Amino acid sequence: MQPPFAGITRRPATAEATEADSAWITRVSAEPSNQQQSQAGSGPLDGLHFAVKDNIDVAGLPTTAGCSAFAYTPSEHAHVVERLLRAGARLAGKTNLDQFACGLNGTRSPYGPVPNALNPAYVSGGSSSGSAYVVAKGLADFSLGTDTAGSGRVPAGLNNIVGLKPTRGLISARGVVPAAQNVDCVSIFAMTVSTAAKVLQACIGYDEADPFSRRVTMASKPLPAKFRFGVPDTLEFFGDKLAEAAFTQSLEQLTGLGGTAVTINYAPLAQAAAMLYDSALVSQRYTAIQAFFDAHEEEVIEPVRSIIAKGRQYSAADYIRAEIDMLALSQVAGRMWQEIDVLFVPTAPTHYTIDQMQADPVALNRNLGQYTNFVNLFDYAALSVPSLMRPDGLPFGVTLIGPAGSDWQLADLGQRYHHATGLSLGATTRSLPEPAPIAALQAPATVRVAVVG
Amino acid sequence: MQPPFAGITRRPATAEATEADSAWITRVSAEPSNQQQSQAGSGPLDGLHFAVKDNIDVAGLPTTAGCSAFAYTPSEHAHVVERLLRAGARLAGKTNLDQFACGLNGTRSPYGPVPNALNPAYVSGGSSSGSAYVVAKGLADFSLGTDTAGSGRVPAGLNNIVGLKPTRGLISARGVVPAAQNVDCVSIFAMTVSTAAKVLQACIGYDEADPFSRRVTMASKPLPAKFRFGVPDTLEFFGDKLAEAAFTQSLEQLTGLGGTAVTINYAPLAQAAAMLYDSALVSQRYTAIQAFFDAHEEEVIEPVRSIIAKGRQYSAADYIRAEIDMLALSQVAGRMWQEIDVLFVPTAPTHYTIDQMQADPVALNRNLGQYTNFVNLFDYAALSVPSLMRPDGLPFGVTLIGPAGSDWQLADLGQRYHHATGLSLGATTRSLPEPAPIAALQAPATVRVAVVG
Repeated sequence: MQPPFAGITRRPATAEATEADSAWITRVSAEPSNQQQSQAGSGPLDGLHFAVKDNIDVAGLPTTAGCSAFAYTPSEHAHVVERLLRAGARLAGKTNLDQFACGLNGTRSPYGPVPNALNPAYVSGGSSSGSAYVVAKGLADFSLGTDTAGSGRVPAGLNNIVGLKPTRGLISARGVVPAAQNVDCVSIFAMTVSTAAKVLQACIGYDEADPFSRRVTMASKPLPAKFRFGVPDTLEFFGDKLAEAAFTQSLEQLTGLGGTAVTINYAPLAQAAAMLYDSALVSQRYTAIQAFFDAHEEEVIEPVRSIIAKGRQYSAADYIRAEIDMLALSQVAGRMWQEIDVLFVPTAPTHYTIDQMQADPVALNRNLGQYTNFVNLFDYAALSVPSLMRPDGLPFGVTLIGPAGSDWQLADLGQRYHHATGLSLGATTRSLPEPAPIAALQAPATVRVAVVG
Repeated sequence: MQPPFAGITRRPATAEATEADSAWITRVSAEPSNQQQSQAGSGPLDGLHFAVKDNIDVAGLPTTAGCSAFAYTPSEHAHVVERLLRAGARLAGKTNLDQFACGLNGTRSPYGPVPNALNPAYVSGGSSSGSAYVVAKGLADFSLGTDTAGSGRVPAGLNNIVGLKPTRGLISARGVVPAAQNVDCVSIFAMTVSTAAKVLQACIGYDEADPFSRRVTMASKPLPAKFRFGVPDTLEFFGDKLAEAAFTQSLEQLTGLGGTAVTINYAPLAQAAAMLYDSALVSQRYTAIQAFFDAHEEEVIEPVRSIIAKGRQYSAADYIRAEIDMLALSQVAGRMWQEIDVLFVPTAPTHYTIDQMQADPVALNRNLGQYTNFVNLFDYAALSVPSLMRPDGLPFGVTLIGPAGSDWQLADLGQRYHHATGLSLGATTRSLPEPAPIAALQAPATVRVAVVG
């Protein structure tokens, strides 16, 4: 067995005020002796540095899930980390998060709130707050987050980077602290779609040891040149006129790429989102950490504690009924795939300052999930890409959503969309590199003709 | 709207002693005025008479689920009944069952036990007892059962007929009283595989109104001529030497059709079966009829009542953990599909008399599920076919099991197997008709060559 990583882990009590520090929980040195597990020179991710959300195991480093009382030091890497190291990537450290991945805003951590990479007065979004921040700042080439209800997309949208929530089961979640195990996904942040797609390719692999791992039949052809995209019949920006204007502009941009907008019934999607915390489905959150929570409930910060505790009260029958209700909603929502090739929504409806969020942490957090919550519950794939920079200097992101297995199609369209924006990368002044073809997609059919004689 | 059916429904209190009567709960007349909904002359099932298990709705007839206090008279047909009538089939009546489809033996009904069609001292098997009996006796050309843990297979095996448990979600369960809704399947009994396959073809159809309906990608090619079949590494016949010898002979017969036996690890399959009643999964049974059960528990017969009542005690967390445990077992079990094309088991390990069963109704019922319980939990398809007649005049059936979507493959192999036995049909002296190709399977690839000039 190879030596585990060594790292320096912040203590919650000494949470530094410096902005960049707050994104990390554990830093590791880039010394070769500390990177023996990275097989540099050997793989498709050679030379890329990555960060890992601190609810994903790296051997030898504590996994805190944002709660030092919960922390343990695993002797094995999470399956996905193992794959990345084998592909040549080098570990930069482990990142801050909303405790137990419960939140969409980035302030729910005893290690301190993670600021927005473009304006530190604002939230980074969560729960994969640190992972999004370090990519947006150029401190890592890519990072792993997790996405249960939007945690891999909201922070991408708020920080002008790409956030890929793959089809559930495509990336093994072995070695990941569960949040709601039936819908948890490991997610990927990067500056560009092309990097995210390359990372996804390295991460994919059926893993018998993860109960939710599965072999997914992937759509292998790009969307047609003329495609139809769904737009919700009701849009909510919580009074944010700049976001509303930004989405209108985004619709025009997608139309310019060959898309035709089709209005879809958003009611079943919104109803599913509402069930996430207001039904027995929340019992998934409690079950995920039940042994720890029953013994150490007081170590869990609010409002995470209250949310998880709600999951204790439901009966098996309550849960089974909620699951059936969710499937019924999924059937109704699924009608839209007869009419559209892809669904198009704002990634987040607005921005909040850290002060605003801390003053009203439940309601404003819920608002941030307006366009993300239903995706995992309905077994969809999603890709958040930057769309534009608002007049106030805050970014606006959009999300492309497709059925399970549409990941490569979303990447192909998402890359075209991102490059059409001409935006700088993350919080840097770097320009977008040339787009790269999505390797897993077949080129449009060609006919070979051999003329002999 | 067309007029609903009229019928004559037995009262539990007047349960007749005559053998054939005990298989029916409601008879309908074949008068044309009572069959207007059957579109005779119009479809692939024209001229076939069918029976419906009495937990499936037929408009105008009571749905009792084997419990008169529960009975209601629906105004609409179950989705599957509607399809069969449209395909030209004619309704013969509704059949007796283990109450709430909870049982595998056919004695758990206030309408009386259903005897075995070949020897009335023995049980018919259940829960689709009446549906198997009427087909075995030639009183219907085919029938609908339901299968949650073997209810569509055990009675087929015990009565020398074919029992098809399709891939879950292939046939809509709208209008079916749920037993465990996440794994319930409508099943098909017939004398021959070819009839069962023709019926399945007429029943298939995605139905948005059933939360568990789904579009299934079906394997469309037959199994290879030389195939590998799995045999459990541990076999249990509960001391029945005739059954043990029958299975040995069945193995030879399948080998004769081109199969090579591969021993598989049965432990994860047996563990899943054990969880069906001894874990929070039993809460599915309670949830299925919760409102009725809470109000009228005393109307439910034993041991059904005690089994369902167990489902009340579990928490959502208990259920979620059981679901995850089941998925983990499914991953381990799934290894076998790398080594085999089809799994081959006895349909039931033995026969019991009605007296034996009534004296020990829980343990002996469980024994009958030895080779069926795991199938629904692991999302497999299964087909029970007659294999031989034992020296004591009781039949022995075998079951072919494949992954979801393997239904047509199982039908193709099952038909070849059944025809190789040379058995008479059911409890009749009729011979097997000529086999018919399974329409949904592609013929082996052929090359068309046109020579011109």
